[in-house]
Amino acid sequence: MPQLNCNPEYLLHCQKVQSLMQVKGVQMTIVTTPVNVYYLLGRIINGYVVLLPTGKPWIFVRRPLGIEGEQVCYVRKPELIPDILSERAAVSPSDITHLAIEVDALSYNECIRLAQLYPSADTAISADQLLRQARAVKTEAEQQQMRACGKVHEQVYAQVPHLYRQGMTDHEFAIELEYYARQQGHIGVFRTFGTQMEAFMGSSILIGDNADVPSPYDFALGGAGMNPALPVGDAGCILQSGETMMVDGGGCYGAYITDMTRVYAYDEVSELAQKAHQCSCEIHDYFRQVAKPGVGCADIYLHALQMVAKAGLKDYFMGHTQQAAFLGHGVGLQINELPVFYARSKDVLEVGNVVAIEPKFVIPGTGAVGIENTYIITAEGLECITNLPEEIVPLFK
Amino acid sequence: MPQLNCNPEYLLHCQKVQSLMQVKGVQMTIVTTPVNVYYLLGRIINGYVVLLPTGKPWIFVRRPLGIEGEQVCYVRKPELIPDILSERAAVSPSDITHLAIEVDALSYNECIRLAQLYPSADTAISADQLLRQARAVKTEAEQQQMRACGKVHEQVYAQVPHLYRQGMTDHEFAIELEYYARQQGHIGVFRTFGTQMEAFMGSSILIGDNADVPSPYDFALGGAGMNPALPVGDAGCILQSGETMMVDGGGCYGAYITDMTRVYAYDEVSELAQKAHQCSCEIHDYFRQVAKPGVGCADIYLHALQMVAKAGLKDYFMGHTQQAAFLGHGVGLQINELPVFYARSKDVLEVGNVVAIEPKFVIPGTGAVGIENTYIITAEGLECITNLPEEIVPLFK
Repeated sequence: MPQLNCNPEYLLHCQKVQSLMQVKGVQMTIVTTPVNVYYLLGRIINGYVVLLPTGKPWIFVRRPLGIEGEQVCYVRKPELIPDILSERAAVSPSDITHLAIEVDALSYNECIRLAQLYPSADTAISADQLLRQARAVKTEAEQQQMRACGKVHEQVYAQVPHLYRQGMTDHEFAIELEYYARQQGHIGVFRTFGTQMEAFMGSSILIGDNADVPSPYDFALGGAGMNPALPVGDAGCILQSGETMMVDGGGCYGAYITDMTRVYAYDEVSELAQKAHQCSCEIHDYFRQVAKPGVGCADIYLHALQMVAKAGLKDYFMGHTQQAAFLGHGVGLQINELPVFYARSKDVLEVGNVVAIEPKFVIPGTGAVGIENTYIITAEGLECITNLPEEIVPLFK
Repeated sequence: MPQLNCNPEYLLHCQKVQSLMQVKGVQMTIVTTPVNVYYLLGRIINGYVVLLPTGKPWIFVRRPLGIEGEQVCYVRKPELIPDILSERAAVSPSDITHLAIEVDALSYNECIRLAQLYPSADTAISADQLLRQARAVKTEAEQQQMRACGKVHEQVYAQVPHLYRQGMTDHEFAIELEYYARQQGHIGVFRTFGTQMEAFMGSSILIGDNADVPSPYDFALGGAGMNPALPVGDAGCILQSGETMMVDGGGCYGAYITDMTRVYAYDEVSELAQKAHQCSCEIHDYFRQVAKPGVGCADIYLHALQMVAKAGLKDYFMGHTQQAAFLGHGVGLQINELPVFYARSKDVLEVGNVVAIEPKFVIPGTGAVGIENTYIITAEGLECITNLPEEIVPLFK
């Protein structure tokens, strides 16, 4: 079993959170959800990772057995933490006036339990927000993992024309694509922040007017789904002449996710659909020009809206019957990270952000068009890590 | 779009929760997590389902557009709910002294926001617990869905000997099994209660000593997994002479889940492993005899422990390096429902409970043995809905 607390990459992640704690005057952060534990340790435990403003993390483990390392303690319950930290780290409970816990992802009851460990502390600052802010800026090693993930994602999409056979339903195709994706290393689970996104492997295959069926979930587009228990994506449709098939699948080829969308068609699509697809590509071109450190995400969203309006495509942008009011989002260990591109966003691009930009349109009678790419914001400019031809691919012309 | 609030099955689900509200003096229950919304409505919305002690549910929808039905209101934010209920249902905010919200599954911040809608109410009673209690007793229609699910689950496992080829890794096999399961209607998502269980399609394939690698998750057994970001199950092992392969996959063939485990072997397994497998089958026989309405789940667990001790198998029961302290669990829309079979459980079996019993053993040098079945508790006795031969299946003898 490898030693914890000696990998410089994960100590760097902890330090990023600790810098934010120092700025905000937080004396202790307690993290317990799997995704944030993974970010801080590079592995998942059932237990608690406690960060003080400086020093290595304290790791309180319930399961699994066998973990070794500096500052690793086995505990049955979190109530044992204050005494241990008091004794071993000289943290007096009364010194903790600002305690950050995961108030945005952890249940009310679990948060109350953790807050009671330090009853004199306020918990106004969210540990999720500290972690989201730290995680929004990817380290070199994280960027490398995401580049590698994008390469596999590209390779999987390159197979789409070979996997979709005439007369197949979107669902049959989804199963073939998932199967191929798994063979290429898709880890299966698709992590999201919050409770309002559910999708199998992060995958959405939308043919024709199914793209216009509104979904309850927080995705850009909808789809009826195959079962009322999972109302999103493929719904048993067969691609017809004049229609498109949009493929938007979570690229979970490792812990980090890339996000990419491409469009396939039976044959020629309508002029309106071609124009909308062109507009999506132009928004990407615009993004490639302007996306630099210091630029506001709201400004980018609003400019994209103007481009859409100028092209006369407002009624189709980000859905038709139901429209989503954003252009893109950060991506990393979860699909919906910071920064977010929407009208009231206060996020400003930074070097190391990794973002998915997804200007999409739904054209009645045709289906969904537009592309999505994942980009790294670097000091030198934008780096696209999901590189495949961007035009609509006719499958049976 | 079908009308909401007119399906008798889902109104029955609401009434079951309302009966519990009446017993506990809860004047209002607000539900918003997808699984509980689905239970009450038969579909998923982004919004809030509000139950008063009597009457049809009030449905406050953010997304999707297009939902019609009695007592359906579109709202941008939950803060609009009290005025609407005051006007349309004559619910005065000051009358709400006991408000049940999902304090066990919903985030702290979301709970605080909902609690503030009725500032004079206490929220000591958990809506999750009300829903878990109601959901623990399946209606006839739910039982029918679970029977149908079990039939498909059986059919999928019947293919295991055809899908596992000599020299295949557990991971390669997992991908084949998932692919076949998807073709048979597996919906993909695997719903769990709480944040401490993650598994792709609810699937765990354990070969040989990988079964003994402790996992952080709340499953009976572990496995190293293929990636530190998902440390459970298959880990790249190839079945060798003398070893077992345990297949435990979530049967998500529809909204409801069945749970089943069977064991395959390369050839003969050790006497100890045979004996342990036999002990598992005997615990199932015992369960079939005693599992009747009114019997305590703790008593069943403790008796099973005695059977294990008497057989001299304590060191291998529910794991070897790390042991889990339970025998089984309720199953339905989520894999970990009520009742639970462990030492301190206060749950008592009722007609309509659907439970998965999983006495498993990990034998060093061999792997995991034991079976798991899903049973319905009926007035007439126990009904097994995952019927397949229970002996270890040698694959290459």
